Amino acid sequence: MASLPPTATDTTPTPAPRDTLHFPPTHQAQLAPYLPSPTTTKPSLPTALALAPGTQTLLSGPQSKAMTHFLRSQHDAILVGVGTAIADDPSLNCRLEGVGGEGRGKAPLVLVSDCNMWREAGEERRKLLRSVGGHYIWVPSTEVNGRHVMEWREIFSTLHDLGIKSAMVEGGAGVINGLLEPRNAELVDSVVVTIAPTWLGQGGVVVSPPKRVDQDGRRVLAARLKDVKWIPLGEDVVVCGRLGG
Amino acid sequence: MASLPPTATDTTPTPAPRDTLHFPPTHQAQLAPYLPSPTTTKPSLPTALALAPGTQTLLSGPQSKAMTHFLRSQHDAILVGVGTAIADDPSLNCRLEGVGGEGRGKAPLVLVSDCNMWREAGEERRKLLRSVGGHYIWVPSTEVNGRHVMEWREIFSTLHDLGIKSAMVEGGAGVINGLLEPRNAELVDSVVVTIAPTWLGQGGVVVSPPKRVDQDGRRVLAARLKDVKWIPLGEDVVVCGRLGG
Repeated sequence: MASLPPTATDTTPTPAPRDTLHFPPTHQAQLAPYLPSPTTTKPSLPTALALAPGTQTLLSGPQSKAMTHFLRSQHDAILVGVGTAIADDPSLNCRLEGVGGEGRGKAPLVLVSDCNMWREAGEERRKLLRSVGGHYIWVPSTEVNGRHVMEWREIFSTLHDLGIKSAMVEGGAGVINGLLEPRNAELVDSVVVTIAPTWLGQGGVVVSPPKRVDQDGRRVLAARLKDVKWIPLGEDVVVCGRLGG
Repeated sequence: MASLPPTATDTTPTPAPRDTLHFPPTHQAQLAPYLPSPTTTKPSLPTALALAPGTQTLLSGPQSKAMTHFLRSQHDAILVGVGTAIADDPSLNCRLEGVGGEGRGKAPLVLVSDCNMWREAGEERRKLLRSVGGHYIWVPSTEVNGRHVMEWREIFSTLHDLGIKSAMVEGGAGVINGLLEPRNAELVDSVVVTIAPTWLGQGGVVVSPPKRVDQDGRRVLAARLKDVKWIPLGEDVVVCGRLGG
């Protein structure tokens, strides 16, 4: 059993900063079916997955950005891979209006995983992580077909023991691709993807699970969403759904 | 100057076949700004681009399929790369209700390009192409940075001389990626992409133009749409836009 230090919370009312984001109630209502509920029906694995690699945030418009911050406000924790946390230095805060913490409400907890990298990285990186408000959880990985894969069931089980009933997974690609694999599909409650009308160009990061083949060796879909809803948000579109189907 | 044999047209009224598709007027109206107009303002390069590689058609639902057939009915020609025409054997017909030709209206002309492959392929493939109602146009390619690239300006100029005022480009990835390059952007009037809520898996065909870097060697967006409209169609979404911006 691990335990986490309490999160610092500033309860003094202060004026909202200039970069405070607004996400209208109509859009909030559209997302409601895909958010963690206070009385979750899957208490052991109460996790929501949102796909938003570091690069994507730069591409998407202000309304998608407001949605990302709204989603953060609805979860007990944000989970990112250690590579994303260090390389992209994402501002994993919550700037939604009406949600405090320096006038912004509680900042969701930053969690970082990928134990193999941490084993090598040592104390310096852990210090860096702590300095941005992050917490470190050790979870073993397993070797599957020569690849080290994180045991996501154990990660979420550990989080649950720590009282974290919902986590928003924001990247990077490795973390997301692993969670989209069929073996992990049941751990994921919802998938929310922002799509910007852009092409990154050949040779970029590909967010897609490993390829799948059927009994005859023919390629089949690697993953598909069900209960699909498309929400146009400015120049972008947001797709919500659940894995499987 | 080349000339094309007339397309066979059956004007006998017959009952609509069972696989006739319905695309409602409300959706047609949403697409209108992205369709070729009868009095086009760009007479020399009157081309519309629709992104729909062979694989994607298999993924998308009945409403997206109806839209593809509606788009075909609005163009003078369908243009596909020879690889797509032969490998995927797409049914490039038009099954929209109220559009004849065996009860289906005029079938848009199938055009196939990529001269280097044809130079090698010879008479057998040309025969196969003619047998599915296709026509062959010879256009020279240029070597750019060691790659053979098709001279799209010449292709569309030739089509224009043949009286083809609009063409819908349906694939494959090589053709689309070339047309999305900045050097060809002004040749493309509209881009229509159907997105299904699926992941194909790692290692699939990537529809994206070559990567771009700025003066400092940093990667920048390869292409971006402007005048963007998202149209949810069943489980899929369709994005319409224009290149640049």
